[in-house]
Amino acid sequence: MAEDHAVKFFGVTGSPVVCRVKIALELKGVEYKFFEEDLKNKSELLLKYNPVHKKVPVLVHNEKPIAESLLILEYIDETWKSGYPILPAEPYDRALARFWSKFIDDKLWPSIRKAAWSVGDEKEREKGIEESCEALQILENELKDKKFFGGDKFGFVDIAAVFVAFWVPVIQQVAGLNLFSAEKFPKLEKWIQEFTSLPVVKESLPPKQRLEAFFTALFQSLAAAK
Amino acid sequence: MAEDHAVKFFGVTGSPVVCRVKIALELKGVEYKFFEEDLKNKSELLLKYNPVHKKVPVLVHNEKPIAESLLILEYIDETWKSGYPILPAEPYDRALARFWSKFIDDKLWPSIRKAAWSVGDEKEREKGIEESCEALQILENELKDKKFFGGDKFGFVDIAAVFVAFWVPVIQQVAGLNLFSAEKFPKLEKWIQEFTSLPVVKESLPPKQRLEAFFTALFQSLAAAK
Repeated sequence: MAEDHAVKFFGVTGSPVVCRVKIALELKGVEYKFFEEDLKNKSELLLKYNPVHKKVPVLVHNEKPIAESLLILEYIDETWKSGYPILPAEPYDRALARFWSKFIDDKLWPSIRKAAWSVGDEKEREKGIEESCEALQILENELKDKKFFGGDKFGFVDIAAVFVAFWVPVIQQVAGLNLFSAEKFPKLEKWIQEFTSLPVVKESLPPKQRLEAFFTALFQSLAAAK
Repeated sequence: MAEDHAVKFFGVTGSPVVCRVKIALELKGVEYKFFEEDLKNKSELLLKYNPVHKKVPVLVHNEKPIAESLLILEYIDETWKSGYPILPAEPYDRALARFWSKFIDDKLWPSIRKAAWSVGDEKEREKGIEESCEALQILENELKDKKFFGGDKFGFVDIAAVFVAFWVPVIQQVAGLNLFSAEKFPKLEKWIQEFTSLPVVKESLPPKQRLEAFFTALFQSLAAAK
């Protein structure tokens, strides 16, 4: 079908922000062609489609490129309206969904990065651990007794939080950190189990061993550079 | 009218992100009560309504709080639909509007901050100046020959960019920097003239002298701390 190539999706398999887009496309049943990028040698197409940030993911729909994973999720939801709704319908619920997703990107992710990437800088690492735990606690509190962040049905925030569900456990294990545990964050743990059991999520996650190998090599190279 | 108090708006007059919300509310003709915050002594209401970030602006609609200026703009647009449209109608145009607004917050603002706030750190300041000029050049290119960022009518990106239109000229003058000039960025200069001539914008801007006094005091205290 010509339709197949109407949607091109540029990404790397091991990236949590790319995974968000994959889940959304699968959820909506959108046909697409995936282009695996080599971030050390970015393709001309990627540089053409995302000249400002030169990053993945990029979605190209009818030759029109969209960058930034959360903005791509909104675009997918607005374009393929008849499928599973990603954002809630009410303006206030939509605002909350955007708020928590932005919180994950602006607060949680930089803290985890600081905790895990600050190899050889104990002070910075300690600060990162503290900030990560604070941010995880805020998410834990926000879950309350809901099954998913938006309530009974999963959606925008859960997809944004795939990083917490799948990447954080791998990163902390490889980096030898104690950020997340089922004891400290029982609601998040329950949410992780629920969320990663959804077929569309399970099938969109990268192989765990590949992630472990990637982060092991990354942290070894950071340690070697010190 | 009881309606008047249905919308509470917490902010500080001199803040560009607060000004975004003010423009949007005025544009939609929403009645609201403004609460001027003292950021050195935040009100209990602000801490109650924005416990995560403890920042302005916060919009409270029927006792439900929304934080983050761009998310508030989206909420206002979705809630008071019959007024002037802030975001464009088409998903792709909406994605672009969100992209450029995010660019202003994530790239331009931190660069300007680095250039202006790095008092006594020449290397950091130089880097900030370089990054600011790069970001401004990207916005200049994006304007092309359009009157506003979205085309003939002003909207989301223009409101997000009020910081460029009104704050950047004041900050660079007070900090003694040469970031923006009509010669370097003629399209942005033309856009600034168009945008700040709009009655709804003109009436929402804080008094220039007050901003100048604020930034003068700020940079003096930064210099004194060195």
